Amino acid sequence: MTVYKHVALIGLGLIAGSVSLGIRRNGGDVRITGTARSPKTRQTALEIGLVDEVFDSAAEAVKGADLIILAVPIGAMGDLAAETAPHLKAGATVTDVGSVKSAVIDIVGPHIPDNVHFIPGHPMAGTEKSGPESGFAHLFDNRWCLLTPPKGTDAKALAQLREFWQSLGAMVEIMDASHHDLVAVVISHAPHLIAYTMVGVADDMSRITEQEVVNYSAAGFRDFTRIAASDPTMWRDVFLHNKDATLEVLGRFTEELFALQRAIRTGDGDFLFDYFTRTRDVRRSIIDAGQDTDAVDFGRAAASATETEKK
Amino acid sequence: MTVYKHVALIGLGLIAGSVSLGIRRNGGDVRITGTARSPKTRQTALEIGLVDEVFDSAAEAVKGADLIILAVPIGAMGDLAAETAPHLKAGATVTDVGSVKSAVIDIVGPHIPDNVHFIPGHPMAGTEKSGPESGFAHLFDNRWCLLTPPKGTDAKALAQLREFWQSLGAMVEIMDASHHDLVAVVISHAPHLIAYTMVGVADDMSRITEQEVVNYSAAGFRDFTRIAASDPTMWRDVFLHNKDATLEVLGRFTEELFALQRAIRTGDGDFLFDYFTRTRDVRRSIIDAGQDTDAVDFGRAAASATETEKK
Repeated sequence: MTVYKHVALIGLGLIAGSVSLGIRRNGGDVRITGTARSPKTRQTALEIGLVDEVFDSAAEAVKGADLIILAVPIGAMGDLAAETAPHLKAGATVTDVGSVKSAVIDIVGPHIPDNVHFIPGHPMAGTEKSGPESGFAHLFDNRWCLLTPPKGTDAKALAQLREFWQSLGAMVEIMDASHHDLVAVVISHAPHLIAYTMVGVADDMSRITEQEVVNYSAAGFRDFTRIAASDPTMWRDVFLHNKDATLEVLGRFTEELFALQRAIRTGDGDFLFDYFTRTRDVRRSIIDAGQDTDAVDFGRAAASATETEKK
Repeated sequence: MTVYKHVALIGLGLIAGSVSLGIRRNGGDVRITGTARSPKTRQTALEIGLVDEVFDSAAEAVKGADLIILAVPIGAMGDLAAETAPHLKAGATVTDVGSVKSAVIDIVGPHIPDNVHFIPGHPMAGTEKSGPESGFAHLFDNRWCLLTPPKGTDAKALAQLREFWQSLGAMVEIMDASHHDLVAVVISHAPHLIAYTMVGVADDMSRITEQEVVNYSAAGFRDFTRIAASDPTMWRDVFLHNKDATLEVLGRFTEELFALQRAIRTGDGDFLFDYFTRTRDVRRSIIDAGQDTDAVDFGRAAASATETEKK
């Protein structure tokens, strides 16, 4: 069951779409309104039933809503918060799904009226797709949603938001915003930047043809291109708004890469072997925790995967 | 149909296992002999039918074979080539499946008798698994196998080896060994090293608990851990034997990463946006070329993936 009677989705992409489908999966009588910048997105969202009613402006979309979810790139949140603030219902909760939390608190927080709850959130799930048609009801199942309530957040409002995410299948954890931002760099932002970089290098090396890159991508590169296919606007905003933590982790990354590079240069096989053995153990822990399967992934269609797996 | 009557597999891991299962899939009367360093691997390979007969030594395993496949880490190839050389049948072909080709030519080449063909190869396929039980018959379907014949290679022997790989489902390309080694770094070796590095950083950052890394891995990091779970011995040997090309590409990578890092530091959103847009196009080409599917991948079991996909 969904704990809110009326949910307003500001932005109608992968995450908002999946939230809507997750609410519908729960059944019950929940009104979903929404808006998006692009008329085409609004039209599509209405047609495929992501929203009961779509509005041209966020100010209209939030009217009467118990929960308002900002599901737009972080760079767009400030203006939307300012625009919607006068139209928020007393006692409503505003949350977001941005990948950075300190910046969202700084940007959105000042606009929130005193009689409205503001609890930033980050569902740690997604795919490389974007747009209203990319959502699916199961996206949050068994995934974590991190909430970073500012000091003094109303306990009841927090409990309700927690219950909401749990009703979509997610596990919820409360976390300090700045710690969140560091964790997010390590497990998401830095891997994305690195994947973007490597794909950029491949695209750029004149001694290697694009056809070669494409044809032989099965050998590791493919996973990088998947990651590097994510929404450019969203990721630009993530890096611009999580600068310090990103630069810190990239510094650590470069240091580590140089150590491995040095081992390659000097022929230190033991160093390489030990390093590669240690990282293999991390993989095992992730599978044990149910955050990935042990099934082989070699880029075949999901439908044929069972047939081609050994057992 | 398989073009050789007797195939000897030296090493009985993921690739050799998949070769064997691919040969069996073709039907016909092909004798497969093999050996592996570990008695347990030899025993398992025999039990699950990867080989008709297993031998304690490579010298015995190659006797009478028409095709000998060195499917061991590159560091082990020299000794095995020396050991088997006196026992090779006249007119036989020796190939390998190593990820580096110039080094293999240097290491293995000198041991090959004049009446034996030596054609190095690299099937560009694999998973993060290793061991005799990790193979599957479809591994090479629609994947590329690169052959790097030294100058003066017998045309008929080359045509036969090409036909062999095609019979396992692969597409075959002939390539110069040193060009191969550069391409392999870009689409495979560097991505692996980078994934290993990032997983190492995550494992190492004391302000982030291992549980956090594991729990929230869905957000990009998961693909890195998959790549970083590959066989440590194999990868150590790859980097030790493809030093120059690896260091060259890592140099390019670091340069590029620094440019992105600088854009983050200076808040150059346009640079980031343009970069992320360009890399997205590379992904599109790979899907168009059939080297990956456009299906979303969010780490669920393959069996349930069809159900959870939107369409």
